[in-house]
Amino acid sequence: MNVIRHTMSLVSLGVFQLGRRTRSQHFRGFLLGTGLGLSAFSSVTYAQAEAENAKVKRKLDTSRFMAEPITDAAVLLGDKANMRHRMELMIMEIQAEFCRALESEEMCGKKFQVDRWQREEGGGGITCVIQDGDVFEKAGVNISVVTGWLPPAAVQQMRSRGKNLTEGAKLPFFASGVSAVIHPRNPHIPTIHFNYRYFEVETPDGKKQWWFGGGTDLTPYYLDKQDARHFHQTLKSACDEHDTSYYPKFKKWCDDYFRIKHRSESRGIGGIFFDDIDSPNQEAAFNFVTGCAKAVIPSYMPLVQKHKNREYGNNERQWQLLRRGRYVEFNLIYDRGTKFGLYTPGARYESILMSLPLHARWEYMHEPKSTSKEGELMKVLKNPKDWV
Amino acid sequence: MNVIRHTMSLVSLGVFQLGRRTRSQHFRGFLLGTGLGLSAFSSVTYAQAEAENAKVKRKLDTSRFMAEPITDAAVLLGDKANMRHRMELMIMEIQAEFCRALESEEMCGKKFQVDRWQREEGGGGITCVIQDGDVFEKAGVNISVVTGWLPPAAVQQMRSRGKNLTEGAKLPFFASGVSAVIHPRNPHIPTIHFNYRYFEVETPDGKKQWWFGGGTDLTPYYLDKQDARHFHQTLKSACDEHDTSYYPKFKKWCDDYFRIKHRSESRGIGGIFFDDIDSPNQEAAFNFVTGCAKAVIPSYMPLVQKHKNREYGNNERQWQLLRRGRYVEFNLIYDRGTKFGLYTPGARYESILMSLPLHARWEYMHEPKSTSKEGELMKVLKNPKDWV
Repeated sequence: MNVIRHTMSLVSLGVFQLGRRTRSQHFRGFLLGTGLGLSAFSSVTYAQAEAENAKVKRKLDTSRFMAEPITDAAVLLGDKANMRHRMELMIMEIQAEFCRALESEEMCGKKFQVDRWQREEGGGGITCVIQDGDVFEKAGVNISVVTGWLPPAAVQQMRSRGKNLTEGAKLPFFASGVSAVIHPRNPHIPTIHFNYRYFEVETPDGKKQWWFGGGTDLTPYYLDKQDARHFHQTLKSACDEHDTSYYPKFKKWCDDYFRIKHRSESRGIGGIFFDDIDSPNQEAAFNFVTGCAKAVIPSYMPLVQKHKNREYGNNERQWQLLRRGRYVEFNLIYDRGTKFGLYTPGARYESILMSLPLHARWEYMHEPKSTSKEGELMKVLKNPKDWV
Repeated sequence: MNVIRHTMSLVSLGVFQLGRRTRSQHFRGFLLGTGLGLSAFSSVTYAQAEAENAKVKRKLDTSRFMAEPITDAAVLLGDKANMRHRMELMIMEIQAEFCRALESEEMCGKKFQVDRWQREEGGGGITCVIQDGDVFEKAGVNISVVTGWLPPAAVQQMRSRGKNLTEGAKLPFFASGVSAVIHPRNPHIPTIHFNYRYFEVETPDGKKQWWFGGGTDLTPYYLDKQDARHFHQTLKSACDEHDTSYYPKFKKWCDDYFRIKHRSESRGIGGIFFDDIDSPNQEAAFNFVTGCAKAVIPSYMPLVQKHKNREYGNNERQWQLLRRGRYVEFNLIYDRGTKFGLYTPGARYESILMSLPLHARWEYMHEPKSTSKEGELMKVLKNPKDWV
C-alpha cells in the first residue's frame, strides 16, 4: 500500500532535540566529515582554524541562506560531488527562496523567526516560522540534515516496502530534506504543504542504499478550479521534464496518501507524492527532486497574490477553521512522518508540530449544504478528480 | 505497560455506523436477547407485540433517560439479573443524570442535542451534545451498547495483556459503556473526561470472559489546589468504599496513561484509570464501577458552580485554547480508544470525535513564564503529584 511505503518523511527525521552548537562540535563535524583523525586536529591552533573557516564561508556565500548550513562550509565545499552536500545546498536554497517569497507578501513587514538547532546524535536543522502575520497566520519552513542509527523497527518497515536490509540490525543512516506547511489567513488562499528528502542507509557489508522522496499538495478552503488547474499543471510540467509517466503516478499516490480515512475524504485537492526514487540514476533523481522543489513557488505564489486582498466574513473564517481541524486530524492520526517523528525519543516536537494551524475548530455533525460553496469543495474532497 | 493494557474504550467500541432502527430490527434484538427462536416470533401478531411493548415500557419508565434504551425494554426487564442489562440501565441513568446536571448550569436554557443511532453489525448508542452553550462550549455524553465480532488483531492485543483467548480467531463480543468529555467556556472551570465500560468475549469452547474498565480525569487550565484535592478526594472515597488498594493503584495508572509523551507532560491532573477488573466477583466489580460513575457529579459539578461566573480575559482564553490543542494531541495521537475507534471500518466518527474541543490553538515554541499562573500549572503537568 502506498501509505505504508511512506515511512521516513524528513518532517520527522530532521527534527530532534535542540542544543547549542559549540565550537568543539563544529570541529568534530569538520573532522568527521573530512575523515581527518584527532591527531591532525591537535596540530592546528584554534586561531588558524577560525581564519580558515572564515575564508571558506566567503567562498560559499552563506548570506543568502536563512542561517549557516548544518554541515561545515569547508566540508560542503571540500566534496562538492557528494550527494549529501548537494542536497544540503539545494534544500538551504529552496528554504531561503520560499521564505523570502512569503515574506515579500506580508504587508506589514513580518519576517520569519529562524531557529537553527542541533541534534545530539548527529546533524541538526533550521526551522523558520511566521506566526500571526497579516497574510500568513502560520507558516513553517524546515530543513534538516541528520545522521544516526536506524532502529530495527524502522529497518523492518523499510524491508516491508522492498528495501534489501538486514533484519533486526541497527543501521547507520543519513537523511536530509526540506518541508513546509503554509496556513494563510484569508480563506480564499489555500494551504500548501511540500517536502523533499534524500535518504541513505548503510548495510553491514558496507554497501549504501539511497533514495529520494517528496511531494507538494494543496488544501483549499474554497474551490477555485483555475487555481487547481494552475497548481497541478505546474507540478505536471515539472514532472514531465524528467519522465512523463511520473505525474499521473505521483498524482494518484498523493490522492491515496492524503486521505482522512475515517471521514472518507481527502485533506485537499492533492498534487504529487512519491517515495523510493532511485532511478534511472542518482543524478537524474536529484535533478527531478530539485525540479519539483523549484516548482513550489510558481505553483503557489500566484494563488497567494490573487486572493490575499479578497474580502471574507465570519462564515468563511469558521469554515476555514473547520477544515483546519481536518488538517490536524490527518497530520496527527495518519501522517507517517509526524507519527514517526513524535515516537522518536528526543524528537524536536516543536518543528514536527509546526505544521499544525494556529487555530482549528471541531463541530459535531457539521455538514455544509451540497449546493453551497463549501459543499462544492466537499464534492472534490470526497471524490478526487483530475485537474489537467 | 499500562498504556498497552487499555485497548477497548467504549468511546471506540460504541460508536459505529448510523442507521435507522426498523421494527424488524427491534424484534431481532428482542429474539436474540431472550434466546427465543424464530418459530416463537412467527406466532405473535404485530399488534399484540406492540401492545405488550407499550406495557413493558410503562413498567421501565424510560422517560427519565435521554432516549429509549438500545436494548428493547421488554428484554431489559425480562432478564434483570443479566449483567448486560444491568450495565445498560446503569449507563443510561448516569448519562441522563449527568446531562441534566450540566443543563441545569446553562444560564440561557441550552439543552443537549440527542442522537440515538444504530450499528449495522449489532447494537447502537445515544450521543448527547451541547455545542456553543454559555457555560459549556462543547459537551458530549455518549452511551453505547454493541455486539459484534472481535477482529484477530484486537484478540491478539487482548492476549498480549493476559486474556486467555484463541489466537487468530474471530470472537463474538459484547461491549457497553458511558463516556463523556466536557469543555467549559470559562478557563477557570476544568475539562472533565470519564468513561465506564463492560466487556464480554466468548471463546470457541463457549466460555465467556468479562471485565470492567474506566476512569475519570480532570484537565484544568489554571491550577486550583482546592479543586484538585476535592476532585481526587471524591474519587478516592468512591474507590475506598470497595477496596482501599484501588485509589493509589488507579491514580498512578491514570497518570501513566494520560501522558503526552512527546512533550513529557500530562494532559491534566489525572484522576483514576483502570481496566480488566474482574474480581473479586462480577457483583462487586459492577458495584465498584457504578460507584465511580456516580462520583462524577459530586467530583465535578461543585467546580463548575464555583467558577462559572468568574471573570477572565483574552490571555486566559488564549491559554485555554493552547491547552485544548494539547488535549487534541493526546486524543488523536495516544488515546487507544480514539485510535481503535477510527481504524474500525464503519465507525461513527462523529461520536468518537465529539471529545475534541470546539476550538484549539497551536503556537510555535510557546512557553509560559515559570512564575506565572500558567507556569504553575505546567509544573504539575510535568511532574504529577499526589492530591490526597
